[in-house]
Amino acid sequence: MNLETLQSLHLKNDNKIVFVVMDGLGGHSMTPGGKTELETAKTPNLDRYAAEGITGMLDPVLPGITPGSGPGHLGVFGFDPLETVIGRGVLSALGVDFELTGRDVAARLNFCTLDANGIITDRRAGRIPTDLNERLCQKIRDKVKLSDGIEYFLLTESEHRAVFILRGDGLGGDINDTDPQQVGFTPREPEGGDEASQRTVKYVKEFLAQVRELLADEQPANMFIARGFAKFDPLPTMQEKYGLKAAAIAKYPMYRGLARLVGMNILEKPNDYEAMFTQLKDNYDDYDFFFIHFKKTDSTGEDGDFDAKVGKVELIDEWLGQIRELDPSVLVVTGDHSTPSYFKAHSWHPVPTLLWSANCRRDAVTEFGESSCNAGGLGRQPMKNLMIIALANALKLKKFGA
Amino acid sequence: MNLETLQSLHLKNDNKIVFVVMDGLGGHSMTPGGKTELETAKTPNLDRYAAEGITGMLDPVLPGITPGSGPGHLGVFGFDPLETVIGRGVLSALGVDFELTGRDVAARLNFCTLDANGIITDRRAGRIPTDLNERLCQKIRDKVKLSDGIEYFLLTESEHRAVFILRGDGLGGDINDTDPQQVGFTPREPEGGDEASQRTVKYVKEFLAQVRELLADEQPANMFIARGFAKFDPLPTMQEKYGLKAAAIAKYPMYRGLARLVGMNILEKPNDYEAMFTQLKDNYDDYDFFFIHFKKTDSTGEDGDFDAKVGKVELIDEWLGQIRELDPSVLVVTGDHSTPSYFKAHSWHPVPTLLWSANCRRDAVTEFGESSCNAGGLGRQPMKNLMIIALANALKLKKFGA
Repeated sequence: MNLETLQSLHLKNDNKIVFVVMDGLGGHSMTPGGKTELETAKTPNLDRYAAEGITGMLDPVLPGITPGSGPGHLGVFGFDPLETVIGRGVLSALGVDFELTGRDVAARLNFCTLDANGIITDRRAGRIPTDLNERLCQKIRDKVKLSDGIEYFLLTESEHRAVFILRGDGLGGDINDTDPQQVGFTPREPEGGDEASQRTVKYVKEFLAQVRELLADEQPANMFIARGFAKFDPLPTMQEKYGLKAAAIAKYPMYRGLARLVGMNILEKPNDYEAMFTQLKDNYDDYDFFFIHFKKTDSTGEDGDFDAKVGKVELIDEWLGQIRELDPSVLVVTGDHSTPSYFKAHSWHPVPTLLWSANCRRDAVTEFGESSCNAGGLGRQPMKNLMIIALANALKLKKFGA
Repeated sequence: MNLETLQSLHLKNDNKIVFVVMDGLGGHSMTPGGKTELETAKTPNLDRYAAEGITGMLDPVLPGITPGSGPGHLGVFGFDPLETVIGRGVLSALGVDFELTGRDVAARLNFCTLDANGIITDRRAGRIPTDLNERLCQKIRDKVKLSDGIEYFLLTESEHRAVFILRGDGLGGDINDTDPQQVGFTPREPEGGDEASQRTVKYVKEFLAQVRELLADEQPANMFIARGFAKFDPLPTMQEKYGLKAAAIAKYPMYRGLARLVGMNILEKPNDYEAMFTQLKDNYDDYDFFFIHFKKTDSTGEDGDFDAKVGKVELIDEWLGQIRELDPSVLVVTGDHSTPSYFKAHSWHPVPTLLWSANCRRDAVTEFGESSCNAGGLGRQPMKNLMIIALANALKLKKFGA
């Protein structure tokens, strides 16, 4: 449904929608025919929400496609991840909690080592410690200036990784990587694929030339190579797309950034699960929609630690029990993708999902798990549909057509 | 997902994918509430694969749309049959095992009977025997020559049916049928809808004029009427689209042709089921992907012979038991469409499908049948997704996005 049609259906009311995203929620059995992490975990609250609600299996991108965190969250936020591609540089900027504007071009920079002839001898400058990265970035910010009033931002990520943002009018992001992808070569010259990007290349070159001079005596980090230049094209906000005043409760920069990308208000960084619930409660009256992000179901899956993932699911289940006292109009529990401990990685498997609302039509599913959700009333469908279904259950959408 | 994005996700490994297509697999009960052919058949191997794998109901074109063999197989090969239309002439050429090139325009020809005034009195020339068709085609090939070095091929299909292929640079297929669809009229003049097709019409007219003169004294087959002109536009190959070296094991020309259309290597025509397995085993190390086509589940369905279709399913089930010893990374069993004996024809019903792999997330289905597959983990989805899901389970796809 296009933006304009969707906007014509907006209906204002005070009903609350709470989206709980358990990162990498979907799992897999460790032995053929065994239970998944979610099926192994004791989840009395999830099971009760499932029994009282409607469940299904949702595909973040397409059946068979393994999503990164960016595409995964775009699906949860109701965007088609194949049509809404976020460039690598933009994702990196989101990942350091940087607030991008529509005048920004972002890229990922890696400190590297050049020899006396300008040949790259180490593409990661020996993975320098983060505090050296910070010191060098500070030195650069102090000395390097660009012409024509073009602003730049240089932010340390970790080890050899940094993020570079150019800000100005009429900039373009169609610029090749200067990283030649192997040692033994000089950094490639940046070139622009269109007029705006050619104009932008001028400032990239200015920046890199000054950096090279400034870091000439440093070892091993004496230069940058750049990757993933991308112009930031702001997406429709949650307010514009759904008529929702939305808040994000998330600890990790990438997910705070992804929420910022769709115009959510980012609440203060919570330190623990208790703080997350306090934030939800304290801000409950001020927003229509809450995105709450739990990371550990993904990281334990990436570690291949089945039991740890089961433990995290159980902790979050306990946390979820408290939502009942707030009595939201709609509670959704889903993931941005699957991260089975069996694969130690993101996977393509669809994500078990539940929607709990007085207005949903209950299905027969009484447990929240991959196998049970196959038979759920949401069926198997694209993740991007979920936001609209939630809006409907919150009675925030008018009839389409007469 | 567009071709370029899909290509960016290719991952090479030695894992094998075996696609077994039981033509017209889906069935129907003969009495309300009864079992289908597949549900009636004793299928211990299919049931075990289903129990150990994941199942679902797949729509070859769209729910409610009855597919021909062309669209049905395009869906299985991962193409959208609505966007990838194969002209009738091209399908006819595939059906006689003709190897088309990108310089070819194909059409279906029917021998017809003209009276002394050039009026069509029989659009099928009394359905002449195939050997007369062959004799006449040979006579034409011996005598009829085209100008400008344009090549043509004329191939007997059966009875009054033949296939005509023009080969040359810059030809076009936007040419109307010369068949007026009823007797009592002269054949229509061919006209081209664009410049390339207008150019092509010149050679069509040369051909038809010479044929008319040459066959003037023949009875009843003294002329051709032409239908379904189509330029052959080569599709992306399995190698290009999926990075797969693919082989086809199929006895019947149409299916060999459809596999050729997507660049599969067509193995020698097998005479029986045993030969099909021998071919698979003997070529197993040389390919990433095998398409294996069983025809009889369709033809028995077309005959309305429920018991015969049950028998064929049981034979193929036995055959499928042998696949286990090859231990492919992914085994898929599906059909190109349903052909219920009850309808004696192709039908629109979705196709029961199973995917067996160590990497699939098992569902609760333990029998391979229409009713049971409704509850499977693949859910109900378009057939065109199946190739991508198989690639994922064979670990041949990278993560999409960061």
